[in-house]
Amino acid sequence: MSAPGSLRIVGLGPGGPAWITPEASRLIAYATDLVGYAPYLERLPQKQGQTRHRTGNRVEMERARHAMRLVEDGRHVALVSGGDPGVFAMAAAVFEAIEDGEPRWRDIDIAVSPGISAMQAAAARTGAPLGHDFCAISLSDNRKPWSVVEKRLAAAANADFVIALYNPASAARPGRIHDAFALLRGLKSASTPVVFARAVGREDEYISIETLASADSARADMSTLIIVGSSETRIVPRGSGTPFVYTPRGVKVEQ
Amino acid sequence: MSAPGSLRIVGLGPGGPAWITPEASRLIAYATDLVGYAPYLERLPQKQGQTRHRTGNRVEMERARHAMRLVEDGRHVALVSGGDPGVFAMAAAVFEAIEDGEPRWRDIDIAVSPGISAMQAAAARTGAPLGHDFCAISLSDNRKPWSVVEKRLAAAANADFVIALYNPASAARPGRIHDAFALLRGLKSASTPVVFARAVGREDEYISIETLASADSARADMSTLIIVGSSETRIVPRGSGTPFVYTPRGVKVEQ
Repeated sequence: MSAPGSLRIVGLGPGGPAWITPEASRLIAYATDLVGYAPYLERLPQKQGQTRHRTGNRVEMERARHAMRLVEDGRHVALVSGGDPGVFAMAAAVFEAIEDGEPRWRDIDIAVSPGISAMQAAAARTGAPLGHDFCAISLSDNRKPWSVVEKRLAAAANADFVIALYNPASAARPGRIHDAFALLRGLKSASTPVVFARAVGREDEYISIETLASADSARADMSTLIIVGSSETRIVPRGSGTPFVYTPRGVKVEQ
Repeated sequence: MSAPGSLRIVGLGPGGPAWITPEASRLIAYATDLVGYAPYLERLPQKQGQTRHRTGNRVEMERARHAMRLVEDGRHVALVSGGDPGVFAMAAAVFEAIEDGEPRWRDIDIAVSPGISAMQAAAARTGAPLGHDFCAISLSDNRKPWSVVEKRLAAAANADFVIALYNPASAARPGRIHDAFALLRGLKSASTPVVFARAVGREDEYISIETLASADSARADMSTLIIVGSSETRIVPRGSGTPFVYTPRGVKVEQ
């Protein structure tokens, strides 16, 4: 039996090193083994004596179990995730693997290190669209029926939340965001601000500020985060450059 | 007319320096002037030649306007905020001040730097309770009618979102969270997991994992973030230590 290992589930944020927290950097430097989706690992500096375990994007449970087995071999594993591992990312997959796995896995030395999530980066770039009550919804229907997505979109629209949409499209199902916009157009004003934010913090960053009427679902891909405003969300034009988008801290009372 | 100044709205995260991003540290070091609520400023190292402008907690618009006037004097201002400035914090107040203020303010050099928000820190400490679709709701009724809070809580419960509750109590209105729990108990199972997370990342951090039946609203104060699970959220007991709380990445289909 080797000495006890450890597992740290580490968020890298959505972009470059400027958004990687000191805690995340320290945990990555300390690890004997890095496990993650290859493009995330490639964002990190090489370190002698540290082993990298690259996995595909769609094998989260297998990646989690692989990390657990390394920990059982006494390794100190950093399982890296884009964004915040706790928001539509690796942390939930690890706890699923633990609950469904070996009973002894529950007592492994494990911790999560949070990161900046895509919706926060998108919000920061455009103003403060998440400035008041909001929902975050994954449009992926790999693991839930589309009817659940529709129910949540309708509830969020009817209660006038700002709505952040993750996973708006995939190779297998490019039209999810088209269907989501169609539903939201039936429930919200055509002038509702919509933010498209692709690859925020990376070289190919692309931001577009639209309305629900003008939003073109074909612009969204797997790397796009979309924010749909509430009825209070405002677009503030500027003399130069892109307008601001923000949601006021309160809700005006109708007289 | 002095040389143009700049405004950076900077998130410090919820705790100590381990969660302050490199971007935030760089912006704070570059600033000629730091503006913020006194306890946030006290978390930052003193720097010679840098002026600090301490303000109270409840004067956000005045603080924002003060920052804008400094920028007009050619100063490079970092307006610091706990957590993420874009999530129930300073950024929305600044854009409100700009929209309602001098037209020339719209063209000031301004940017937002995101931070780890309280709900992410609370989630990281307890597992992955925000692992699937969630809402974030401020229970403050300073700037919106309580009926709006009730409508949003009910919508979030009925569509089975995980719910993160900000501002659960204040000196003026300690009973908001009591009323919110009463509403949620009428709509959700008594066994729904509830996380209380107070002062996460600080010396007096306090975490408690409850159910909707056992959750005691008297435990929540201004520094507490509360997460109420969805019907899928699970508490996983451990042989040693606190249980994990997580929300699976999908929704099981009833057969």
